[in-house]
Amino acid sequence: MPEKDLGKEMYDFMHELYPICRSITGNGVRQTLKIIKSHIPIEISEVSSGTKVFDWTIPKEWDVSSAYIKNSKGEKIVDFKNSNLHLLNYSIPVKKKVSLAELRTHLHSLPDQPDVIPYLTSYYKEDWGFCITHRKYLELKEDTYEVFIDSKLSSGSMTYGELYIKGKTAEEVLFSCYVCHPSLCNDNLSGVVLLVFLAKSLLKKKNLKYSYRFIFIPETIGAIAWLSINEKNVGKIKHGLVATCVGDPGCSTYKKTRQANAIIDQAVVKVLIDSGKPYKILDFFPSGSDERQFCSPGFNLPIGSLMRTPYGNFPEYHTSADDLNFVKPDALMDSLSKYLQTVYILENNLKYVNRNPKCEPQLGKRGLYNLIGGSKRSKISQTAMLWVLNFSDGSNSLLDISVRSNIDFPSIKDAADDLYKSGLLKVSSSN
Amino acid sequence: MPEKDLGKEMYDFMHELYPICRSITGNGVRQTLKIIKSHIPIEISEVSSGTKVFDWTIPKEWDVSSAYIKNSKGEKIVDFKNSNLHLLNYSIPVKKKVSLAELRTHLHSLPDQPDVIPYLTSYYKEDWGFCITHRKYLELKEDTYEVFIDSKLSSGSMTYGELYIKGKTAEEVLFSCYVCHPSLCNDNLSGVVLLVFLAKSLLKKKNLKYSYRFIFIPETIGAIAWLSINEKNVGKIKHGLVATCVGDPGCSTYKKTRQANAIIDQAVVKVLIDSGKPYKILDFFPSGSDERQFCSPGFNLPIGSLMRTPYGNFPEYHTSADDLNFVKPDALMDSLSKYLQTVYILENNLKYVNRNPKCEPQLGKRGLYNLIGGSKRSKISQTAMLWVLNFSDGSNSLLDISVRSNIDFPSIKDAADDLYKSGLLKVSSSN
Amino acid sequence: MPEKDLGKEMYDFMHELYPICRSITGNGVRQTLKIIKSHIPIEISEVSSGTKVFDWTIPKEWDVSSAYIKNSKGEKIVDFKNSNLHLLNYSIPVKKKVSLAELRTHLHSLPDQPDVIPYLTSYYKEDWGFCITHRKYLELKEDTYEVFIDSKLSSGSMTYGELYIKGKTAEEVLFSCYVCHPSLCNDNLSGVVLLVFLAKSLLKKKNLKYSYRFIFIPETIGAIAWLSINEKNVGKIKHGLVATCVGDPGCSTYKKTRQANAIIDQAVVKVLIDSGKPYKILDFFPSGSDERQFCSPGFNLPIGSLMRTPYGNFPEYHTSADDLNFVKPDALMDSLSKYLQTVYILENNLKYVNRNPKCEPQLGKRGLYNLIGGSKRSKISQTAMLWVLNFSDGSNSLLDISVRSNIDFPSIKDAADDLYKSGLLKVSSSN
Repeated sequence: MPEKDLGKEMYDFMHELYPICRSITGNGVRQTLKIIKSHIPIEISEVSSGTKVFDWTIPKEWDVSSAYIKNSKGEKIVDFKNSNLHLLNYSIPVKKKVSLAELRTHLHSLPDQPDVIPYLTSYYKEDWGFCITHRKYLELKEDTYEVFIDSKLSSGSMTYGELYIKGKTAEEVLFSCYVCHPSLCNDNLSGVVLLVFLAKSLLKKKNLKYSYRFIFIPETIGAIAWLSINEKNVGKIKHGLVATCVGDPGCSTYKKTRQANAIIDQAVVKVLIDSGKPYKILDFFPSGSDERQFCSPGFNLPIGSLMRTPYGNFPEYHTSADDLNFVKPDALMDSLSKYLQTVYILENNLKYVNRNPKCEPQLGKRGLYNLIGGSKRSKISQTAMLWVLNFSDGSNSLLDISVRSNIDFPSIKDAADDLYKSGLLKVSSSN
Repeated sequence: MPEKDLGKEMYDFMHELYPICRSITGNGVRQTLKIIKSHIPIEISEVSSGTKVFDWTIPKEWDVSSAYIKNSKGEKIVDFKNSNLHLLNYSIPVKKKVSLAELRTHLHSLPDQPDVIPYLTSYYKEDWGFCITHRKYLELKEDTYEVFIDSKLSSGSMTYGELYIKGKTAEEVLFSCYVCHPSLCNDNLSGVVLLVFLAKSLLKKKNLKYSYRFIFIPETIGAIAWLSINEKNVGKIKHGLVATCVGDPGCSTYKKTRQANAIIDQAVVKVLIDSGKPYKILDFFPSGSDERQFCSPGFNLPIGSLMRTPYGNFPEYHTSADDLNFVKPDALMDSLSKYLQTVYILENNLKYVNRNPKCEPQLGKRGLYNLIGGSKRSKISQTAMLWVLNFSDGSNSLLDISVRSNIDFPSIKDAADDLYKSGLLKVSSSN
Repeated sequence: MPEKDLGKEMYDFMHELYPICRSITGNGVRQTLKIIKSHIPIEISEVSSGTKVFDWTIPKEWDVSSAYIKNSKGEKIVDFKNSNLHLLNYSIPVKKKVSLAELRTHLHSLPDQPDVIPYLTSYYKEDWGFCITHRKYLELKEDTYEVFIDSKLSSGSMTYGELYIKGKTAEEVLFSCYVCHPSLCNDNLSGVVLLVFLAKSLLKKKNLKYSYRFIFIPETIGAIAWLSINEKNVGKIKHGLVATCVGDPGCSTYKKTRQANAIIDQAVVKVLIDSGKPYKILDFFPSGSDERQFCSPGFNLPIGSLMRTPYGNFPEYHTSADDLNFVKPDALMDSLSKYLQTVYILENNLKYVNRNPKCEPQLGKRGLYNLIGGSKRSKISQTAMLWVLNFSDGSNSLLDISVRSNIDFPSIKDAADDLYKSGLLKVSSSN
């Protein structure tokens, strides 16, 4: 499929997921996972409210039917139907009349961004509230308002989805995204969409070296629960990425793992360098998304995050402006392409040993060198062969060689294939 | 006390010490130490002339009553009473009449700085001389001059002062300055004044972790003598600084220890970064002040030097222009503040272990996290807690964490205190 | 001899070697080595065609008497006598009439550089051809051409030269250059000339610490053959340089060894820094000249290449424009000087131990310190002594100290000599 069409297809899928009111629990997540399951064969799991997961407890399940504020004329001046961001996420049920003064203690707006609705939550403190534009906030007059929130907060469960693609080894690559935000696009529907399309692509591949695990979880509590449930198996995870904020028009940004120089760090950085486009590299920091949990000191997993503009660094973040206009099909496609290139490196990153290590082998007699008059091999291909031969001493992987030579990884991989076929390389026992 | 007044108090103390004619031995040093003792309870020691200290020998004691040059009209054209810099320090007694030609072989001036008197010494070669402005030098006419130096160079002793403040452990922090320069302010009365006020401040503190040692010594020979006398105990010195040139208006400059990455190096550099003001960092070099001796290869102590403009890098250096106008109360105060902040880091630089290392602990239920509507904790404080939790794995100290996070040390320390009180941290056994 | 005259002498020697038609085998190499032998006592060796050397085989020997293209009027339009570059090196014998179309399949020219003759070879594929300016190529008209190449390609041998200068130890410094290019100056006669004059200079020295080996070999096949023949002895090679492109007016360029931080790397970089002139440092890369073989992973010798403008980076490279005008006597001399300074460092790079490691020794009493009124020692010399004393703890060589202090190596060496004579240093057992 042409890249342009694939970007459009990703965007359309995000469009489908956009209206659903998600939270860390409840039917919004279930509905989202059901739609995902129509694309890729995830397994859906439930974790009961009250379950202990490390230092945390799975909270009550929350669902909402409707919510509004009416003025004394009976006009709905704020209505959940218009935007699910209007309701403070996890608001308890309310039905009462309040003065403007009392109402204001439950209203949230952004004076610096008067035209957008903020996104706020109160998962762990029972509260209720509405989020509105600051312009609307300033228009409110003295009046008696009717506040109505038809929500349910009660024992239930937290839901998450998981896909496992079995490869030749039990060693895993983990991709994680969160499915708990309501109508917000870059943060985080873009991550959901990217992982669904990445999974689709990997499901088509045969002979994958690694096994791949995709998890679609509520942020923080979902990651903690998943780690708690799967604690015995996390040792299998050799590489991983958290997918979030991958659809905005900004340049790619990679937040390194806590280990700082894991293979996933080297691979993603190489993909970004080879892209020829601007990019940023950030050292690990302990705030952010679920890499906070994966990289907590008791796990310290080799999991980074390949984003575009990081959470909190774009003004649309956690507001109604993070909508379908903010995310671009081209950006989604470019991010997917970089995830695929990273997988390509991980899959093909072998160490070889030069079987002819004393002086160069004679490439010409093997048809690997351009003789006078012939030029079937490109200059980069010949240079790549010299790099692979010289540095394949068992200590350097193809990724190491591509980094050191500043030659793109696929060219190094192709050179290694040709040399291997000619019998000049063997696979190192140190892989 | 307000900082402004403390800077003024330091300056006034320097004013009091300024007129005394000091040298590496003699009553000038004794008088200086006596004044210091009126502020802090130093012990004063004498080392006899002729005592062997490593490769050196304590020289004869030198004292001077008066010195002048008279012209044939009986006019004193150069007089020690006007500036003790006029006399070549350690000049032997002289009383004789000389021609201009002979006199000139004993005169020292600076053609490039014609209005200042240079400061010169001849400790280890018996000689006599006068230091004058080059303007004066050029004015001298053919005449018969009477030269008179009423000095005494004979067996006596070298004097130094020492203050020991006992802390909870025998591990020491050493602060050193020199008391051998006559009327010169930045080099080195500024260092003397700073250490006296630093000592005053530490004497008021209870429960110091480290013991603190302050030494007031003649430069070079004093440091060598002190190391020779205390050779068996230098292993207790865990950190240290040489205080010199701390009063000029230039930016702070830190000269690293020979070890290059000692804790004192990390601590001072962090203080300078956190200051938000310009600063310079210099790698260790083997010329300079008494760090030359402390960092000689047989000792290699973790002792650096926190200065402002380094010795030799300001034109007033070793001239009469290094006077009370050159040193500023604000600069003295700023330097003292940086020494105090360094001590604060050393005292509080513990390693902790996160007791809940698998995923983040739930800060909200412990009142450590801002829930909706509340904001008792600042953003930096919350970020600091995440850094401390994530990196407290027993290998990182609070200083390491503050450096890595680029958060100021006090905020990291406060975060650690709160986490410790909540039971989320324990003190590492690797401290 | 004044440097200017020596540069001229080197240039004149290059002039003498320039007209000879060299290749990887044949009489051109023999004639070149014979002229070299008139300057320095090299041994000349022959390796028979068909000899196996690692993955390669010594090819047939090639010699050429004459070669030309005549048009139908009998005019020689291209003649080997005018430039030995006109003939594709290793062309097989040919005598036939050809159409313009057929002729063109055997002609080589450079459309981008229409006025120069390219240099091309076909060592390992039997072929024939002529190299001409593109201007000439475009002038050729439909005609019947007579092509005549009186060459001989038959079993013989490959010739190379070698000089061994015995020093106090069997540890060797290897200098290598190639003698296989016809009339090309910077690449590579400049390297031949430089090594001959370097050898002349070392032959005059007594008490060399290292033994020195100079090899004059055909590029690639010569290096491979030499390594194959001398495989058992390469462990003696402790340092080395490949000399090529050392005569053009560009700045000096050093290509590091594959080891990247060998002593030869440190020494050459220090020479370049101390030169005060522009220079470039390149990390090792596996294309280039014979460092490709010396630094193949099975040998990984500490051999770099000190050039001026690297092969391939100047437009004259491998064309008739790399002639006697392109190379300058001053540049040859400057390169020779840098090779000699490198040898000076290698010869004098000892580790010492300060015999008075606790505090500084008293330099004044040993006449090593400027007392008042005296100034026989320069400031740099005194600073150098402090550096040598402080860092001579057995772990730092004089080269390490000169790098760290940013003082030129000869000053550090002189300071060490003075300190050694004064009994303040002893030679470290870790040399």
